[in-house]
Amino acid sequence: MYHLDSSNTVPLHLQLFEAIKDDIINHYAIGDKLPSIRKVASEHNISKTTVESAYSQLYAEGYIESRPKSGYYVSEVFFDRFQHKPTSTKTKILDINYKYDFFPAQLHKEDFPLKLWKRIFTKVMTEEVDFGTYPNGQGELALREQIAKYVQNSRGVHCDAEHIIITHGFIDSIELLAKLCKSKYQHFAQEIPGYHIAHKVFSSYGYKTYDIGVDKDGLDIDQFKKSAAQMVYITPSHQYPTGATMPIANRLKLIEYMHSIGGLIIEDDYDSELTYYNRPIPSLQGLDKHECVAYLGTFAKALSPSIRVGYMVLPSRLMSAYKESYDAHFARVSLTTQLTLEAFMRQGHWDRHIRRIRILNKKKHQTMKDALLKYLGESCQIVSQGAGLSILIVPTCSTFDWQKLQILSEEKKIKIYLAKERSGGEFEAVRMGFGGFRLDEIDGAVEKFSKIWDSIRET
Amino acid sequence: MYHLDSSNTVPLHLQLFEAIKDDIINHYAIGDKLPSIRKVASEHNISKTTVESAYSQLYAEGYIESRPKSGYYVSEVFFDRFQHKPTSTKTKILDINYKYDFFPAQLHKEDFPLKLWKRIFTKVMTEEVDFGTYPNGQGELALREQIAKYVQNSRGVHCDAEHIIITHGFIDSIELLAKLCKSKYQHFAQEIPGYHIAHKVFSSYGYKTYDIGVDKDGLDIDQFKKSAAQMVYITPSHQYPTGATMPIANRLKLIEYMHSIGGLIIEDDYDSELTYYNRPIPSLQGLDKHECVAYLGTFAKALSPSIRVGYMVLPSRLMSAYKESYDAHFARVSLTTQLTLEAFMRQGHWDRHIRRIRILNKKKHQTMKDALLKYLGESCQIVSQGAGLSILIVPTCSTFDWQKLQILSEEKKIKIYLAKERSGGEFEAVRMGFGGFRLDEIDGAVEKFSKIWDSIRET
Repeated sequence: MYHLDSSNTVPLHLQLFEAIKDDIINHYAIGDKLPSIRKVASEHNISKTTVESAYSQLYAEGYIESRPKSGYYVSEVFFDRFQHKPTSTKTKILDINYKYDFFPAQLHKEDFPLKLWKRIFTKVMTEEVDFGTYPNGQGELALREQIAKYVQNSRGVHCDAEHIIITHGFIDSIELLAKLCKSKYQHFAQEIPGYHIAHKVFSSYGYKTYDIGVDKDGLDIDQFKKSAAQMVYITPSHQYPTGATMPIANRLKLIEYMHSIGGLIIEDDYDSELTYYNRPIPSLQGLDKHECVAYLGTFAKALSPSIRVGYMVLPSRLMSAYKESYDAHFARVSLTTQLTLEAFMRQGHWDRHIRRIRILNKKKHQTMKDALLKYLGESCQIVSQGAGLSILIVPTCSTFDWQKLQILSEEKKIKIYLAKERSGGEFEAVRMGFGGFRLDEIDGAVEKFSKIWDSIRET
Repeated sequence: MYHLDSSNTVPLHLQLFEAIKDDIINHYAIGDKLPSIRKVASEHNISKTTVESAYSQLYAEGYIESRPKSGYYVSEVFFDRFQHKPTSTKTKILDINYKYDFFPAQLHKEDFPLKLWKRIFTKVMTEEVDFGTYPNGQGELALREQIAKYVQNSRGVHCDAEHIIITHGFIDSIELLAKLCKSKYQHFAQEIPGYHIAHKVFSSYGYKTYDIGVDKDGLDIDQFKKSAAQMVYITPSHQYPTGATMPIANRLKLIEYMHSIGGLIIEDDYDSELTYYNRPIPSLQGLDKHECVAYLGTFAKALSPSIRVGYMVLPSRLMSAYKESYDAHFARVSLTTQLTLEAFMRQGHWDRHIRRIRILNKKKHQTMKDALLKYLGESCQIVSQGAGLSILIVPTCSTFDWQKLQILSEEKKIKIYLAKERSGGEFEAVRMGFGGFRLDEIDGAVEKFSKIWDSIRET
């Protein structure tokens, strides 16, 4: 007889399950027959259903097996497999305590409109979000409409909400694109130097890849035309990492060529909001009359990399491919984040924020430039400036030990970033990021950096 | 002379840019030479830098071109290309006004712990989130530690935080897995009937796929062994859609076999939190001593599909492959969502929520079952129940027009879901979802549905 207590909050069938399980482990042998359901029920004055539930759980967990027309027997499998010692979840956290971090794709946390964002978030969560349902796979229509309006007005992008997909950032956009194009294209080109991730993604998806050179006008179009590539990934507004701008004549030439071969241009407009000298020049996509451009944008650079929101504007034919894929059914960003961003844009905060963040980073940019002139002076040459979140410098001396610069910087707990690491090719420069600093921290950071810089030059 | 106003908020170089641009469009001819920078500067009493900026913008936007040692000339390209009429962003929204929606993967929005979630969200945003930085690619360590603790204690999963990756849901997990395994495996099997998406993802990634039958014990292991597959996607705790549970003996057999061929089992534990009769049985992964199981979990079914958070527990060798891939660098879920979920779990709310949601859905499950017996009675047979967010039924009559059921339901604005649509094979059933209803709505919904059901049986 098992001790069962009907006043206990644990249901009877689970009490019975536990009791029989203990019995099996401690008293039964493998192959022993269990009493029949009817017998257990009548002995304990409980319903047959209760005993059936307990037996079915014993069966499901493998303690017993059923033999047709005979009954239940203790199973042959071993029980001790369930007894896990909890593994320690303590993990080593790398102890990187950099005093200065020149990360070139970072904003300072104080630059985020936290109060406003929080207010909208809370309101949206209370009034709009249905936590019970799956969001729209393509992204919420209302947010896509805001983005369409923004890229049209600010970037001259030709689009409507139906041609936009919300992603969780650049990497998500480019992967989705690699998938959608696979059945049509096999040959992919990108700028060298250029953002290394696009190359990695496309080659991981089985494309044959081509490296195309870059000059002061961006992509070398003649070289590109000689390749077999049907797709090209470019950063025409502000070439990554050289900062070159592709002139309109080249843009049109590239579009005409891509149209003639039925190809696709992937335009990454990654930090178009952050230009400090000139007005940002309109997108290449806006010049295209033939739907041969996929336009990629992100909120990471001007709003926050931590919210994980990016977007793509795709030609109609790629939208059709997308809609037939399983991807169309699954949202890539939480509903709350999408609707908060939508309200943020709709209420005009995004436009105001861009103006504010541009002014703020323009000041940081100037301060960085002043500090470079002050501490590095003639020993460095600025090779890219005027946009984004970093200034690129190279030494003016004839030989320079880049590796040593990196090692010594690490020793002094200064984190620096070299262009070649992320862009391939022969182009090398230090990417002096300023976005992650407070304005008043920049001068000091560059001063410390200059000590290392000088020590390399002297050796 | 251009009219420039230094008290204007528009910078001088942009005023100049606009003025010259107008001049070019209205007065210049293609090929005309522009005045030199020096000349414009002295005429307007402004710095050469200002003129240079204006000219460089004109160059960037394609209005002028530079000829070495000669000067600037009006460019040959056409300017009118920039003039876009804004496209209408109005899009048609499908007018589906279902009176009753039996969606089987939905929770009712009132079941979400909104107040609590909002409170934690706000606190986390204020105190913890750095909106300026990129989150950890693998997912925040603190959240991974919470998930490790949870899956260990509740699901018997053997893991630590280092072996967990945070994703934006099942689709994201399974795609990442397909990518990580591509270099090692080429042959993929899944249950038929089974969740169709896994199949689609793996075949889109170029795997050869195999359909393996399912019986009352889940996957047909003998059939599986005869195939060439090195990977198998299964739902052992609650087979999708039949509801079968794989007994422990079969689990061990499958693990031994996969170990012997160096293969991989993908265990999708999609609604393990929602079991109403028996205790949820421990995961298959917990039985594995050879690291041949990848375990997939999600917060979509028991917390919210709209927050877009899932996770994977991977064997060490797949974690190594992951860490070498570009994926390791990019977070898939916003930092705020991750840290909110972490605090929610750490403070014990997740455990409480699961208990609450299980009780709540157990009541809905019972109400659905009662209503089915009341309105459909002997005309239907329940083929899967006791877990998840739906009860599966089939008609007891010998012929039944499933298509007509669907058409008539649409006409009456009732949205129903058939098993075959999403799981392939011959198994067919109506998935009577109850999660999206309030408790008091279920009886009425089933009553309305029964009218259609009856009309089919009579024809």
